[in-house]
Amino acid sequence: MLKKRYLLTPGPTPVPPESLLAMAKPMIHHRTKQFRAYIADATKGLQKVFQTENPVITLASSGTGAMESAVCNLLSKGDKVLTVSGGKFGERWTEICKAYGVNAKVIDVEWGKAVEPDVIKSELEADPDIKAVFTTLCETSTGVRTDIKAIAELTKNHQAILVTDAISALGAEEIKMDDWNIDVVVTGSQKGLMMPPGLAFIALNDKAWKLAETSDLPKYYFNLTKANKSLTNSDTPWTPAVNLVIGLVEALNIINSEGIDNVIKRHELLAQATREAVKALGLGLLAPENPSCVVTAVKLPESIDGVELVKKLRDKYDVWVAGGQAQLKGRIIRIAHLGYMNKFDIIVGISALEMALKELGFEFELGVGVKKAEEILAG
Amino acid sequence: MLKKRYLLTPGPTPVPPESLLAMAKPMIHHRTKQFRAYIADATKGLQKVFQTENPVITLASSGTGAMESAVCNLLSKGDKVLTVSGGKFGERWTEICKAYGVNAKVIDVEWGKAVEPDVIKSELEADPDIKAVFTTLCETSTGVRTDIKAIAELTKNHQAILVTDAISALGAEEIKMDDWNIDVVVTGSQKGLMMPPGLAFIALNDKAWKLAETSDLPKYYFNLTKANKSLTNSDTPWTPAVNLVIGLVEALNIINSEGIDNVIKRHELLAQATREAVKALGLGLLAPENPSCVVTAVKLPESIDGVELVKKLRDKYDVWVAGGQAQLKGRIIRIAHLGYMNKFDIIVGISALEMALKELGFEFELGVGVKKAEEILAG
Repeated sequence: MLKKRYLLTPGPTPVPPESLLAMAKPMIHHRTKQFRAYIADATKGLQKVFQTENPVITLASSGTGAMESAVCNLLSKGDKVLTVSGGKFGERWTEICKAYGVNAKVIDVEWGKAVEPDVIKSELEADPDIKAVFTTLCETSTGVRTDIKAIAELTKNHQAILVTDAISALGAEEIKMDDWNIDVVVTGSQKGLMMPPGLAFIALNDKAWKLAETSDLPKYYFNLTKANKSLTNSDTPWTPAVNLVIGLVEALNIINSEGIDNVIKRHELLAQATREAVKALGLGLLAPENPSCVVTAVKLPESIDGVELVKKLRDKYDVWVAGGQAQLKGRIIRIAHLGYMNKFDIIVGISALEMALKELGFEFELGVGVKKAEEILAG
Repeated sequence: MLKKRYLLTPGPTPVPPESLLAMAKPMIHHRTKQFRAYIADATKGLQKVFQTENPVITLASSGTGAMESAVCNLLSKGDKVLTVSGGKFGERWTEICKAYGVNAKVIDVEWGKAVEPDVIKSELEADPDIKAVFTTLCETSTGVRTDIKAIAELTKNHQAILVTDAISALGAEEIKMDDWNIDVVVTGSQKGLMMPPGLAFIALNDKAWKLAETSDLPKYYFNLTKANKSLTNSDTPWTPAVNLVIGLVEALNIINSEGIDNVIKRHELLAQATREAVKALGLGLLAPENPSCVVTAVKLPESIDGVELVKKLRDKYDVWVAGGQAQLKGRIIRIAHLGYMNKFDIIVGISALEMALKELGFEFELGVGVKKAEEILAG
């Protein structure tokens, strides 16, 4: 039968045709007023989504590159920092710190739970020397949302800066960089920003830029001071990813036409519908207490192999969801409701899940998930 | 009048419609057999262009990122290396080494000249401790070609590895990684590979991988050992730039259908026609002795302002060439004959140059440049 692909993975996410077509336009050179206009538009559009007056730097890399840039531009060898290990992406902060000889104290959190702000409070109170707290707004490996607003209240009056990985969450979860006093926000292009992967973004406030002045770690490609200086002229130190930036301008226009508050409300609604539909099917949630608006991690019964379920959804129905990572491999699936998605993407996702589960022998009444989703999405 | 753009800059270069359309296809997820097939195809295609059996690693970054990866994966703090300062891109090697505390002995070369292999020979003989020689196949800022083959003869029997920036030259200049014993080759997507910027590539031979084992410099995003391990499964450690890789497969198909030897012959012919046409107009070449097949740097008479000429070519004729960089600003223009170009791109470039020069008051007979180009390109 005719195949039509439905991409419900937590990055890459579907790219709107406006961006795809903009990226297919003939190439232009980057050291020109024509391209600088795109950079200027992109930066303004990004500031609205970041909800910040700080410059937002665009890097040609994946999100991990922007994470590394936060570490190597802000810290010095032997600095003490806090990281949170409650999923694959929180652990990445620890790994990057380790690679640079930064001394990370790791707060262990069960996968599927969020770090308690009180734990960070105790750590900060116990050690005034801590230079940075590395957090993850949505831990994509577990679908958990962290209370960044509460943590920012703690770092505001401490010397430590708060660095937030909002790679999967920006443009989906509420995050107000300036209002909440988040010092550094990092994101990537292939999530809420609805673009292909290949661009990463980072914004720093004055407190973070001040810390950058003392950093002694080596950096070149990811030198943010240099990038920030170029950005004042809508330029970049190295060759930018020209057609991705041009596509990004279109994606940002779509996001900012809807308005960032509406974009986040839409994600909240789609996430709620997904969670309730999954529960109506008799399945559990990995993160019932702090679920994100980005991705829903669905616990599978013993009888269902998650790897097989993901494969069946993709190969038979052309509905692409993600499986579990590391210790969760085979035990969960992750359904994204992220980016260029509306009500009917959720209906498709739940419908495909119902058909695949039935085929794998899971017992439930066909249609109950979709019915529940419709109840939430109607009106 | 109707504008049609002609991109004759030394990167980005024109992108074939096959690649533009492939990049505009709906997004797919990268941790799938579908995407791994693209990575496998791209890697095989790249090996043909690199003329190597070594794995070619694809990074999501600009070429500078791949240059940095060569430094931080191969060297250790305090290591002694040689760099060549004869243009902006040779100087970049020195800057990267400095950022990492690598001790670079800089060989100074006049801009417009190539480094003499004999100079490198003396340096290598004088200091057996040198760990690496950093070179630039085509110095894009001056249009100079370096004799990498001769330098590789020297490093072959020395402990030092030879690292070649072939960012602008791969797919235009002859370079045989394996036959010539080049230890590391770096390139980017937006040059001879005919793609938009956003991808960088690096290949290492066994001698280089052996050196990588002892490197103590910090690295994470650009960790090549990790990338190489993933590549054995046609995978990447971080999210790859999905649609750029998909477009790259198309570009490589075009290149490898023509055949890398024919591609290089084509570049040699277009470069020769450009140089002779420019001379027929009464203009000089910045690099008459070692001109590259990538880009021709044209010296301008005192009466002509290079910045104004570039602007007129772009804004009035929509023919985009590059100006001079650093101390050459305003004194040269650089016409690329690079990538997705054939005979008539050269005709257009020379024709536009004639019209713009006439308008700026330069005295010559209209048409003599095009005539000379036709003589070389005919048949």
